[in-house]
Amino acid sequence: MLDKISVVLVETTHPANIGSVARAMKTMGLCQLVLVKPYDFPSARAKWLASGAVDILDKARVVDTLDEAISDCQLVLGTSARLRRLPWPMISANDAGRKAVEFAASGQNVAVVFGRESKGLTNEELQICNHHIFIPADEVYPVLNIACAVQIICYELRMAYLARSGQTQYDPSSLFRMPVSTSAWDEPLSTYSEMQGFYGHLEKTLLDIGFYDPNNSRQLLSRIARIFQRTRLDKMEVNILRGILSAVGKLKPKS
Amino acid sequence: MLDKISVVLVETTHPANIGSVARAMKTMGLCQLVLVKPYDFPSARAKWLASGAVDILDKARVVDTLDEAISDCQLVLGTSARLRRLPWPMISANDAGRKAVEFAASGQNVAVVFGRESKGLTNEELQICNHHIFIPADEVYPVLNIACAVQIICYELRMAYLARSGQTQYDPSSLFRMPVSTSAWDEPLSTYSEMQGFYGHLEKTLLDIGFYDPNNSRQLLSRIARIFQRTRLDKMEVNILRGILSAVGKLKPKS
Repeated sequence: MLDKISVVLVETTHPANIGSVARAMKTMGLCQLVLVKPYDFPSARAKWLASGAVDILDKARVVDTLDEAISDCQLVLGTSARLRRLPWPMISANDAGRKAVEFAASGQNVAVVFGRESKGLTNEELQICNHHIFIPADEVYPVLNIACAVQIICYELRMAYLARSGQTQYDPSSLFRMPVSTSAWDEPLSTYSEMQGFYGHLEKTLLDIGFYDPNNSRQLLSRIARIFQRTRLDKMEVNILRGILSAVGKLKPKS
Repeated sequence: MLDKISVVLVETTHPANIGSVARAMKTMGLCQLVLVKPYDFPSARAKWLASGAVDILDKARVVDTLDEAISDCQLVLGTSARLRRLPWPMISANDAGRKAVEFAASGQNVAVVFGRESKGLTNEELQICNHHIFIPADEVYPVLNIACAVQIICYELRMAYLARSGQTQYDPSSLFRMPVSTSAWDEPLSTYSEMQGFYGHLEKTLLDIGFYDPNNSRQLLSRIARIFQRTRLDKMEVNILRGILSAVGKLKPKS
């Protein structure tokens, strides 16, 4: 089940970190690593730090864009320590583990995205994500090494996986952990590419009807996307919304 | 309270690991580091990897024996991946976090002991500990890097500390409907009557543009409402969506 969850590293600078991430993943049973424009890969240094997890480096997928890395994913979780101007739905590492495993268990693809060592993810990259994972670090120095951040997330993924498959050695009903919603949905969820298609259609429609001025409403599209990113649309919902947009497209200004 | 909990490293070989451990500790608010016979300390390499946590290295206590490191401690937790011939009371990382914080809160000193990179803790050292912490790593490759192991334990310590002091920093009560604490959001949430106003506006617009036929699309409005009900719109989002509906209302059919 954990093989439905991939770790995506965006423009990692140090090959040592890529190796350490692979090791962190493997100790927790994760195996899918995707590298977006790594600065130096493959490398001997990464292999050295991967230790017993060289197989994960060997089969890592290397791509040019974050879009490409997550195109078949139904759930995308981003990680960022930086505060943004536009708040995004936050989820704790603990809840993120449960949510990702719940998605994976129902056959959905999940990506957890980690940014550059120096400056994390860009605003554009963060807004692609459905949720941002919050690791409750100390305010005095909240700067986790990337491999350590991956280790914590993969640990929570594994804890959620063990709890779900009944192999637990910890008490899932304990004070700090809440039960996972298991309610089934009636329609398959949309993929990232389907959502991009919808957003493109929406943007064009808003331009056509004169509601959106790219020069004067910088946050507008982000605010609208945030509504749908946090709600996770299913395929039928995307079809309904695009149907509305098509109906609007057949109208013309009253003169 | 976390200053009552020390991280003890026994005969660490690589100075880089000492630095990485200091960083992992500081990100989670721990500050007491004790080094038992470190192979190479102090060192520039450790400082480099400590990054913003050099202060923890500077005030680290260096001792000759584990006994000395833990002499004033009321609770000693050991970590070891190895299975031992003599079973010892095991405790999960999660429970260890709670137990350690419980002791610290009542003024007791706690030590969490990590062994050598190559072969962990000896049987004698393990038997000094009250409990052994169990990190549920994957059986195929359960060998965590020492800094990553420290990161997980310190993360659980911090989670337990935050929970105990009521500083959750995050509202876990709303995983699916509004995965964000309302206090962290930038706009106030919409009221029930504002949502009803929006739904009425939406229904009228869909009727006007000929997308919605009350006799033939029974589920349509329910499906659309479900999207917005589960996402919990804020006031500005409702205004944006109603603004779009108003813009659409100014159009007319192409004839």
